[in-house]
Amino acid sequence: MTAPQQHKYLLTEDEMPTSWYNLIPDLPAPPPPPLHPATHEPIGPEALAPLFPMALIEQEVSAERYIPIPEAVQDIYRLWRPSPLFRARNLERALGTPARIYYKYEGVSPAGSHKPNTSVPQVYYNVQEGVRRITTETGAGQWGTALAFACSLFGVECEIWQVGASYDQKPYRRLMMEAFGGLVHRSPSALTESGKAILATDEHHPGSLGIAISEAVEVAAQDPTTRYALGSVLNHVLLHQTVIGEEALLQLAKAGEDRIDLVVGCTGGGSNFAGLSFPILREKLAGRFDPEIRAVEPASCPTLTRGTYAYDFGDTAGLTPLMKMHTLGHSFVPDPIHAGGLRYHGMSPLISHVYELGLMTAKAVPQTECFEAGVLFARTEGILPAPEPTHALAETIREARQCAETGEEKVIVTALCGHGHFDLAAYDAYLNGRMVDEETPDERFAPSLAELPTI
Amino acid sequence: MTAPQQHKYLLTEDEMPTSWYNLIPDLPAPPPPPLHPATHEPIGPEALAPLFPMALIEQEVSAERYIPIPEAVQDIYRLWRPSPLFRARNLERALGTPARIYYKYEGVSPAGSHKPNTSVPQVYYNVQEGVRRITTETGAGQWGTALAFACSLFGVECEIWQVGASYDQKPYRRLMMEAFGGLVHRSPSALTESGKAILATDEHHPGSLGIAISEAVEVAAQDPTTRYALGSVLNHVLLHQTVIGEEALLQLAKAGEDRIDLVVGCTGGGSNFAGLSFPILREKLAGRFDPEIRAVEPASCPTLTRGTYAYDFGDTAGLTPLMKMHTLGHSFVPDPIHAGGLRYHGMSPLISHVYELGLMTAKAVPQTECFEAGVLFARTEGILPAPEPTHALAETIREARQCAETGEEKVIVTALCGHGHFDLAAYDAYLNGRMVDEETPDERFAPSLAELPTI
Repeated sequence: MTAPQQHKYLLTEDEMPTSWYNLIPDLPAPPPPPLHPATHEPIGPEALAPLFPMALIEQEVSAERYIPIPEAVQDIYRLWRPSPLFRARNLERALGTPARIYYKYEGVSPAGSHKPNTSVPQVYYNVQEGVRRITTETGAGQWGTALAFACSLFGVECEIWQVGASYDQKPYRRLMMEAFGGLVHRSPSALTESGKAILATDEHHPGSLGIAISEAVEVAAQDPTTRYALGSVLNHVLLHQTVIGEEALLQLAKAGEDRIDLVVGCTGGGSNFAGLSFPILREKLAGRFDPEIRAVEPASCPTLTRGTYAYDFGDTAGLTPLMKMHTLGHSFVPDPIHAGGLRYHGMSPLISHVYELGLMTAKAVPQTECFEAGVLFARTEGILPAPEPTHALAETIREARQCAETGEEKVIVTALCGHGHFDLAAYDAYLNGRMVDEETPDERFAPSLAELPTI
Repeated sequence: MTAPQQHKYLLTEDEMPTSWYNLIPDLPAPPPPPLHPATHEPIGPEALAPLFPMALIEQEVSAERYIPIPEAVQDIYRLWRPSPLFRARNLERALGTPARIYYKYEGVSPAGSHKPNTSVPQVYYNVQEGVRRITTETGAGQWGTALAFACSLFGVECEIWQVGASYDQKPYRRLMMEAFGGLVHRSPSALTESGKAILATDEHHPGSLGIAISEAVEVAAQDPTTRYALGSVLNHVLLHQTVIGEEALLQLAKAGEDRIDLVVGCTGGGSNFAGLSFPILREKLAGRFDPEIRAVEPASCPTLTRGTYAYDFGDTAGLTPLMKMHTLGHSFVPDPIHAGGLRYHGMSPLISHVYELGLMTAKAVPQTECFEAGVLFARTEGILPAPEPTHALAETIREARQCAETGEEKVIVTALCGHGHFDLAAYDAYLNGRMVDEETPDERFAPSLAELPTI
């Protein structure tokens, strides 16, 4: 009898990383600074102080390679971390591929995604600085759930503005936030000036992430014991997610792999992708591995592959600092694809910078191919993936099929950032033939790109 | 600095049990045999052959203490097993209790519950004997999901009759079954004689588990390459679930516990409860531990605490063999409580027998207390529990609060058999004040108990 083949590689709680990894000092050039929206001058920490606690602002601009994870945060991480790294043996078999496919699974967290990796430290630092209430926006609800969970553990109030269309269509996600004690408002709401202004034009307005951000920011800025929290895009958020990649490196070593050929992750704001790939990129920069690091984005919101690298606002209303990033224009409204977490007009400035440095590649894939990949994955590996990571799975499957032709034994590592238990209406549309791939002609982006600020 | 406190106790894939444990040979008396519904004589294996493969029938009546888990089944188990045992430190802290609370979490499985522990071997043995299609019934959908998943791995057709009311109200569960490739029918259906007979009385009939069983059984009995599968109640199903308790024993040893004071599990058909408690009961019978083993059932369907121990049918229509069990009468229809998995008129015959032998105790709890426990658990431990295990959590919390008063450091072990991602409508009802505790006067059971067969 041969030894049984292992499906997953676990770490003990003792093996959990005790520091986050900051990629910036290891890059050959620093990323361009954020600029003040009015003066176009680089902003200092004080500009962000009404919205974020000082500890997070310091992390945002830190030059340290490693930042220790506070004991209290580690203690909560251990509820679900270290997360498992799986070898997708059943999927490999179904594809008849010699490639070895590994996926790091973050769906084991309380929110069912990678988001609690940052919601927990964000709430922790807020509490350290006396904050009593945290506001945020959420689209489909993954981030809102993660923040509500973290707030419940620290006894802080959590107030969430959820994009109206999702609030109406996905009651389960809202209920999950409420079960964790979150207070959820439909956005636009009559609770803020920005919400009221929109409601005046249409009392049933479906909302957008941009509007919800404005509402959450407005409320936080008005109250000295309230702060705002963001679930992706910013440096400190990407930093917190690096526990994913640090663990994956240890687990790949346990799996006996001495090389990585390809790292694949989906990108919306970029935090999941950065979480897996930045620690691996450190090893690449140090010459230890030489993988291709590839971002996969939806064909309907192709920020990296078809956007412009320019200074732009983070929100639709133009209230945030200007950030240099790949953008389709802050007024661009992506088609309502099912992977709500990938519908963002811009890309994390740090990832955009890494992309410009030539340290990673990017591809866009259409959504029906993603759901096809998701169903094959569920039927072989047993986990129903969220629509976002099916983008990375679709690309992984393309590569693995190619390996089946060439005979290459590529080592592919991907990030399965969450489960799809709250996304079954999208699977329904796919399984019952109601999902179509949208055309995305250049003309769709032209108007919003024409509105980019002139810096 | 003190060492960090551990939240979870993991096992490696190598430490996964390689045998299931059969409690029957260790009991001081054998359980009463099933009887033929017409002759009232004990039935032989041939009576079950049209419905189940011979390997499962042999397990149903086996006198072996340990039954090896086939390699192919172990290989699939390793997708999610060994499952984690958690120490509920955050919950303990919130309760201010000196009790040490452990929960074995089965929600990490593909179906989000303990059910794949038996669906996988059931499908395996069916395939070994040439079966091409498996039928079953499902209520809320946990079992149907688990069976569809297992069938997808083995390339067998899966046909599921889902209770009409659940089919209409819980589309997400149905979609999950479809994502795994299952064919789901609303029951009663026009596909069977038993379904058509019901539809003739009411074309929008909400259905019941009893009716759905009749439909699935009818279809299986008509086709020599089709068999039927059951998700709880029977000996072979309980047997497969013993991996839960075997792992828990190893994990409690890793946690440094040299005693167990209380084992608490919820009971519907009984498979989750038996899975955790039977291996612990073996240790109790061997004198190694002396825990109280306590079943917790809903106040609205109190089979063990208020039912009669008598021979009764497993289904409403009276088609199955007669089984000696605690029953509220096969015609009893429980109130529509939110814990759909606990709405069964009878109790597993083997658990009923263990109860009669005085080897375990039972309690009934009302549902609002269960949801209160579920919300406290989610806000402290981060996992939103399914409604079924909240019954065990409610009882665990009662005990832990009592320990807070007495100072007793009880070691309490409970089974968290699944997550509540598909049960958020029930949490909504609780959180928004629309849940009431039903009165259950004796008169509710009297009519169905009067209909028990005379043996």
